[in-house]
Amino acid sequence: MNSKKKVFIQEIIMENSMSKNIKTAITPTRTEDYPEWYQQVIKVADLAENSDVRGCMVIKPWGYALWENIQRNLDNMFKETGHKNAYFPLFIPKSFFEKEAKHVAGFAKECAVVTHSKLEDDGAGGLKVAGELTEPLIVRPTSETIIGASFARWVQSYRDLPLLINQWANIVRWEMRTRMFLRTAEFLWQEGHTVHATREEAMEETLKMLSVYATFAKDYLALPVIEGEKTASERFPGAYNTYCIEAMMQDKKALQSGTSHFLGQRFATASEIKFQNKEGEVEYAWTTSWGVSTRLIGALIMAHSDDNGLVIPPRIAPEHIVFIPIYKTDEEREAVLNYTKNTIKHLKKLRYNDEYIRVHLDDRDINNGEKNWQWIKKGVPIRVEIGPRDMQNNALFVGRRDAEPRDKISMNCDDFCKNIAEILEEIQKNIYDRALKFREENTKNIDDTKEFYAYFTAKNTEKPEIHGGFAMSHWCENEECETKIKDDLKVTIRCIPLEKTIEHGKCIICGKDSTQRVVFAKSY
Amino acid sequence: MNSKKKVFIQEIIMENSMSKNIKTAITPTRTEDYPEWYQQVIKVADLAENSDVRGCMVIKPWGYALWENIQRNLDNMFKETGHKNAYFPLFIPKSFFEKEAKHVAGFAKECAVVTHSKLEDDGAGGLKVAGELTEPLIVRPTSETIIGASFARWVQSYRDLPLLINQWANIVRWEMRTRMFLRTAEFLWQEGHTVHATREEAMEETLKMLSVYATFAKDYLALPVIEGEKTASERFPGAYNTYCIEAMMQDKKALQSGTSHFLGQRFATASEIKFQNKEGEVEYAWTTSWGVSTRLIGALIMAHSDDNGLVIPPRIAPEHIVFIPIYKTDEEREAVLNYTKNTIKHLKKLRYNDEYIRVHLDDRDINNGEKNWQWIKKGVPIRVEIGPRDMQNNALFVGRRDAEPRDKISMNCDDFCKNIAEILEEIQKNIYDRALKFREENTKNIDDTKEFYAYFTAKNTEKPEIHGGFAMSHWCENEECETKIKDDLKVTIRCIPLEKTIEHGKCIICGKDSTQRVVFAKSY
Repeated sequence: MNSKKKVFIQEIIMENSMSKNIKTAITPTRTEDYPEWYQQVIKVADLAENSDVRGCMVIKPWGYALWENIQRNLDNMFKETGHKNAYFPLFIPKSFFEKEAKHVAGFAKECAVVTHSKLEDDGAGGLKVAGELTEPLIVRPTSETIIGASFARWVQSYRDLPLLINQWANIVRWEMRTRMFLRTAEFLWQEGHTVHATREEAMEETLKMLSVYATFAKDYLALPVIEGEKTASERFPGAYNTYCIEAMMQDKKALQSGTSHFLGQRFATASEIKFQNKEGEVEYAWTTSWGVSTRLIGALIMAHSDDNGLVIPPRIAPEHIVFIPIYKTDEEREAVLNYTKNTIKHLKKLRYNDEYIRVHLDDRDINNGEKNWQWIKKGVPIRVEIGPRDMQNNALFVGRRDAEPRDKISMNCDDFCKNIAEILEEIQKNIYDRALKFREENTKNIDDTKEFYAYFTAKNTEKPEIHGGFAMSHWCENEECETKIKDDLKVTIRCIPLEKTIEHGKCIICGKDSTQRVVFAKSY
Repeated sequence: MNSKKKVFIQEIIMENSMSKNIKTAITPTRTEDYPEWYQQVIKVADLAENSDVRGCMVIKPWGYALWENIQRNLDNMFKETGHKNAYFPLFIPKSFFEKEAKHVAGFAKECAVVTHSKLEDDGAGGLKVAGELTEPLIVRPTSETIIGASFARWVQSYRDLPLLINQWANIVRWEMRTRMFLRTAEFLWQEGHTVHATREEAMEETLKMLSVYATFAKDYLALPVIEGEKTASERFPGAYNTYCIEAMMQDKKALQSGTSHFLGQRFATASEIKFQNKEGEVEYAWTTSWGVSTRLIGALIMAHSDDNGLVIPPRIAPEHIVFIPIYKTDEEREAVLNYTKNTIKHLKKLRYNDEYIRVHLDDRDINNGEKNWQWIKKGVPIRVEIGPRDMQNNALFVGRRDAEPRDKISMNCDDFCKNIAEILEEIQKNIYDRALKFREENTKNIDDTKEFYAYFTAKNTEKPEIHGGFAMSHWCENEECETKIKDDLKVTIRCIPLEKTIEHGKCIICGKDSTQRVVFAKSY
């Protein structure tokens, strides 16, 4: 079969696949079984796999490239806001952990404890644990206490403040139920830790970094988020205030995608971070911490992907464009490859969002239809096929991931190159707009208790995930009402939005007066 | 005192400090006490500090910025040679570790073992270890075995090969005697792991990555290195061949700065990495691994720094230029700062080695002389002072870290900006040339046993570190001779140079025939 014909057949298959009841690239689809669809997207896009270590995943090259792009761009934003990176020990002595009671209570239940420092021959061909440590070491579940010990040394005077530090690191929390990217025993993250002279400056930093996260989510991940404050019951252990960004996934559940904590003087007191103020008096400092993790990749998958696989916003795509050369004869191969390589050479000199265009040439000796589908499943923003006829017409056959797989168009090669940044930005914007529209369509102001319960009650007992989405309802700020909703519906207050609209209403549970709507949702 | 005058006095102090027997910025000096000088450079340059966790250091922002620059540039080189990054679990099940006997023997003695998964209230206000794991987990001392488990799943056919993966990660080895950057319980590194269809391809990769390391050391760290092969006794546990780059420090000792291992089929057999070849037969694959770590920062410090502190090669400097504005009145302050900021704005648009010029404005309210010395100690390549008179003359007062602190010169501002990339590259080259000259001056062909012993015998019993340097001598390839020299002199064969010059000679110990000189040295 010639290659052209192959492509044609492939297209018919694709066209069929898009009709109802026809097989898509992912089985099951989102509506058939959302949790399993999520696992399948990770698999077909080759993002990650489970390892032999309970709850720990292996992040494969395509998944890790997403993390590298997230990391590089977010790191630039941290540096632009005056932060510097540093690195602190993986291990935290048990005694450090005991310093801050609330913090301990929150993390002690789920941590990896190092108790020994060697393995010895067990005399039976195996190894046994030996060299018991005098004090057990905890593999960091978060680094406030170990970083606090350094900060206590670094901060002496108001002149040393603010101290604005970030760490990129691995974290271990012994989660019972794990799911790749969303909740794993080991994960990668960044944790910002800052020290300030006053409450006001620490609070300003807490909110500034929340806004950095929201901007990053919007501009890079194409993820619309709601910025808000957590209720007391959902706070980081030991924090006075926890702020978060919350995003809606395609099953209408909320995913907490980043948090920023105002720690008051609590951790400074536990770690003895003190400074001499301008008046010569010694005070405890004010601290903050904030973090996002590889969970963002989970958010990305669940917010944008479809029944044909992953959809990657161009700004963080490992490759912006994949070229698939199409030929039958050796002669054609040489001509098409030359033409393709010249085009790639030109494209690689161009920039999109201040980074060089990332282009991959896929010249593997496999079926072109299969090849095309592999890149659709991997979520590459643009696929370009070039055959002998395209070449003769100085044309390219272009498929965009934000369009249906069959909607490929022929473009003039020069026009394509000239407009590549605009095309990529248009894809980026389309992905964002679609996610925003989805969230708006599935968010409702609800003031009636019955309607609220119906909104969150499964319409199909076999698919408890089917529910209304986000409910914007009034709440009296009483923890009892919050708990009742959690117990009855597994619905939590995701956040009290920062963008406050004073509006008088009645608590959706108890009917007491309230002045603001909060975000209720099922969540991950 | 006016600022101009302050600067003038500062210069006199500097001039004096450079004369013999006058205090330098670092006490003790290199000749007085080299190991302590090393610790002091780390301290005054604010690179790192010891933590409360035994053997684990805190890498402070200035030190971590060096690592980030090393990482970014090396990562580019890995990607240019076709490697992709991925991430594998921090923990390795004990059973994995038991698979490869030689490997186990090499690493089992020094590792952190996780045995429990939680902490519980001990009833006395503290915490106790709980939740014993069924199988202990080892915090990775290197990742061959855990990565091998994934590779066994990823590799099925010759079409999957070569598989070229790299990981940036933290590593833990329970070292008994630690020294910051050179040998710490936890350190940061990269580990390349690759799989090939044939012995030849695996060997080619092993040597290619060694050469990438040598190029990086030369071009970025300004570090001349000798590429060579380790003798059997110095091999990585489980490797068939270990290759290394060796650099000379200023105490004339060798520092192994990177290694690349040819693992044959040994690890592939232990991890069951098999593939179907073109003929349809199933074979074990051939693997390699290679790594460099934060030890490179130790190499950098010990090779280039002087008695006034750190000296950083421009290509990996956190800041290329620091500006120190000099003024007395508020009026002068405004004018000088405007002029300085304009100059900086212009410089930041320029590039050196394909990266934007990194400029820092130090406008802290502290003594200008102290400020100047702080940046000398931190090793910034170029310091620029600007006072009102410089401004009037469209001039800058420029100090280079590769020159004496007092050798500052006035430069036309436009000329400085126009030539900034050339100036930085000249500094880079000077630092390299000086290190190369030092190594050449302290390397000697030795063919006489007595001379060999004298070369490595302390000339001063109080300073056992004083010795000749590298001896290029003949060796019969017999381990007994190698051991004798190690026992007698604490001298080891650093490597058998890859650049082979066939030369007939006699083993420096036993007198048997030999065809090549090897590198003998004391080492870290």
